[in-house]
Amino acid sequence: MRPHGSVAREENMSNKPSSPSTPHGVLAIRTLAMPANTNTGGNIFGGWLLSQMDVAGGITAAEFARGRVATVAINAMEFHCPVLVGDVLSCHVDIVKVGRTSLKTHVEAWVKRLREGHVEEIKVTEGDFVFVALNAKGEKRVISQE
Amino acid sequence: MRPHGSVAREENMSNKPSSPSTPHGVLAIRTLAMPANTNTGGNIFGGWLLSQMDVAGGITAAEFARGRVATVAINAMEFHCPVLVGDVLSCHVDIVKVGRTSLKTHVEAWVKRLREGHVEEIKVTEGDFVFVALNAKGEKRVISQE
Amino acid sequence: MRPHGSVAREENMSNKPSSPSTPHGVLAIRTLAMPANTNTGGNIFGGWLLSQMDVAGGITAAEFARGRVATVAINAMEFHCPVLVGDVLSCHVDIVKVGRTSLKTHVEAWVKRLREGHVEEIKVTEGDFVFVALNAKGEKRVISQE
Amino acid sequence: MRPHGSVAREENMSNKPSSPSTPHGVLAIRTLAMPANTNTGGNIFGGWLLSQMDVAGGITAAEFARGRVATVAINAMEFHCPVLVGDVLSCHVDIVKVGRTSLKTHVEAWVKRLREGHVEEIKVTEGDFVFVALNAKGEKRVISQE
Amino acid sequence: MRPHGSVAREENMSNKPSSPSTPHGVLAIRTLAMPANTNTGGNIFGGWLLSQMDVAGGITAAEFARGRVATVAINAMEFHCPVLVGDVLSCHVDIVKVGRTSLKTHVEAWVKRLREGHVEEIKVTEGDFVFVALNAKGEKRVISQE
Amino acid sequence: MRPHGSVAREENMSNKPSSPSTPHGVLAIRTLAMPANTNTGGNIFGGWLLSQMDVAGGITAAEFARGRVATVAINAMEFHCPVLVGDVLSCHVDIVKVGRTSLKTHVEAWVKRLREGHVEEIKVTEGDFVFVALNAKGEKRVISQE
Repeated sequence: MRPHGSVAREENMSNKPSSPSTPHGVLAIRTLAMPANTNTGGNIFGGWLLSQMDVAGGITAAEFARGRVATVAINAMEFHCPVLVGDVLSCHVDIVKVGRTSLKTHVEAWVKRLREGHVEEIKVTEGDFVFVALNAKGEKRVISQE
Repeated sequence: MRPHGSVAREENMSNKPSSPSTPHGVLAIRTLAMPANTNTGGNIFGGWLLSQMDVAGGITAAEFARGRVATVAINAMEFHCPVLVGDVLSCHVDIVKVGRTSLKTHVEAWVKRLREGHVEEIKVTEGDFVFVALNAKGEKRVISQE
Repeated sequence: MRPHGSVAREENMSNKPSSPSTPHGVLAIRTLAMPANTNTGGNIFGGWLLSQMDVAGGITAAEFARGRVATVAINAMEFHCPVLVGDVLSCHVDIVKVGRTSLKTHVEAWVKRLREGHVEEIKVTEGDFVFVALNAKGEKRVISQE
Repeated sequence: MRPHGSVAREENMSNKPSSPSTPHGVLAIRTLAMPANTNTGGNIFGGWLLSQMDVAGGITAAEFARGRVATVAINAMEFHCPVLVGDVLSCHVDIVKVGRTSLKTHVEAWVKRLREGHVEEIKVTEGDFVFVALNAKGEKRVISQE
Repeated sequence: MRPHGSVAREENMSNKPSSPSTPHGVLAIRTLAMPANTNTGGNIFGGWLLSQMDVAGGITAAEFARGRVATVAINAMEFHCPVLVGDVLSCHVDIVKVGRTSLKTHVEAWVKRLREGHVEEIKVTEGDFVFVALNAKGEKRVISQE
Repeated sequence: MRPHGSVAREENMSNKPSSPSTPHGVLAIRTLAMPANTNTGGNIFGGWLLSQMDVAGGITAAEFARGRVATVAINAMEFHCPVLVGDVLSCHVDIVKVGRTSLKTHVEAWVKRLREGHVEEIKVTEGDFVFVALNAKGEKRVISQE
């Protein structure tokens, strides 16, 4: 058995140090930013980006916890630059802490942008999303750590 | 002239102390949680809720700053309980700090839920959303504080 | 007991006379008009506006009738001017007549528009929406008027 | 030249009398009611239905007026019965009056419902939608009636 | 009884030969291409068009098979020209082959485009969509061919 | 210079043979199937799945062609089994043929499904999507193969 607070299953982990030019964590979501997702300024709506990151953290947490999870907190998220229509958004997730009933994930959002024949990769935002594991009735449950 | 960091226009402010049973801040968004907004567990998708709160903070910040704003950070957000289909969601916003080019808002999300003929009001989540003021070119601009 | 056709619960009522510059009725819906809601002419799609007004009337009627309602009629609705992307739409609702099983509401749709640093408030449309109260099986039921 | 207020191009007109079992008017919209369009009661959301009718009237009016139009009024609309997920919705439109700059359409909404191997056709609602013809700048323009 | 592979109910059939200027098959879907359906190039998103064609084939197949169907294959679909915002899209469907448990449909997508006061009709794409009939449990079932 | 019809940039290619249990091709799209994407039978709508595959092929083709592309054909697509709410959908893309102005991709759609604490990976559909490279005016252009 592992102590609480450590991280466990190797296939979910990525130990390479974060760098300004390489995403950190497992790819959980990859999608195209469409005109339907724009805000009133013509860029991609922040709420859509938050939704993708929440889904990315959630599917990673659900797979680790082998069952349903719910978002309980977001800590310390920063938006570095806007997402544009046509960007390919990737959300990379690290499980940074596993508690008895909850999981903390770090989610990085990167875009691939095609500009004048060149492909750029830019980190647009990152943040911590915390999830709690739920049983079928929607009550908190212990995360198995065999 | 006000010092930076204080809050200014009275019509945007609410000074009553926060209580467990009363929303704090100015009503910025009020909408109905629909089946199209559900997650895979049948409750309302957290990303939709985050989107509404981001819009709520944004329109309050834009009105205060008299122009376009963009989300730059989310601090310390907690989700207390799930939102259900049929809930009427209200987002209340307080401007808690005004900087030279940025604004910090505190956003509370409350639902009104009709159950067996009674109306309940429940605070489902709250958090800090920080916005930066932008000019027409999308560059940072100073927030006027006459 | 009140006679049918009168209006009852005070918290839902607003008795100030309608004016060209002030919304009439209780605020039921407040939301931001997004690019995803545009019509082929680039303004906000009339169907989206109608949807918001229908929801506004419906949640006000449901709260008054303490249960589920369905739209049965729309009378005499006029559109005064277009809604634009970035407008903050507010729907204000007055319950104007309470029958045995139905409720008539008057819904006003106003926008707050930020233009060159000034905030305008404009009434864009208004109309009567009639709702019928339903029981759990979807059948008409009597509206309680204790 | 025709007098104002009459109706003109024959291909847009249908003169058969309305009956309880046959749609009246030209088919303008035909679509499938999906789960994403449901209200909190599980039936199809009235606002979605209104949107389809508004589009139906609008495309018929735009084709008649040979250019852009905008909705200016809805008169006397009644909802006879709910629309269900899986219904095929058809909106039929009659141009009932042509003015100098505006057009009045009557829109009928019918559903085709497959139940236990039988196909039913039911009129769910109908109403008058009035449109004004616009020029490229969004100003009222005279409808040509050569 | 009809032999398998032939086509049966006359009301679903259209026997006029396909021509470059006239749609072939029964009108199954008619809708307006909106800004929310655009791709990153500003034209209508191909996936939206495919969705409409899939629905068109599916409702025609479901009506013929008198019950639920699911898409099992798409054969040989070609896109001739882009769909633009404001186009009225019509999907016309022919049932070209009826098997024991499956149906092959040919779906043509046409647009009506209003340009400088003239209405053009253009075939934008066409393809074969194959559906299988399902019973209430989601298992294949024999299509009745009385 | 490579001959036309071959495939070029190594980072886009995957040469491992296709197997029943392993996706073939580069991961282009990964997303969660939500209740908003369901069809009238409660499973995920085929049109949504087609949209995701079209986007997956398109972003892979656009990156290879270093610019905008449009879908021109879909060949021989088969649906093996339904996608369910909660499935994590991944679209894997192989560029199978590069012509002078067009690219043929093979797109596989796989789902990861969490069931009773186990994760299954299932291939739900696959097909060929052909794209043409476009210049800024939307005209066909030659794909550079340095």
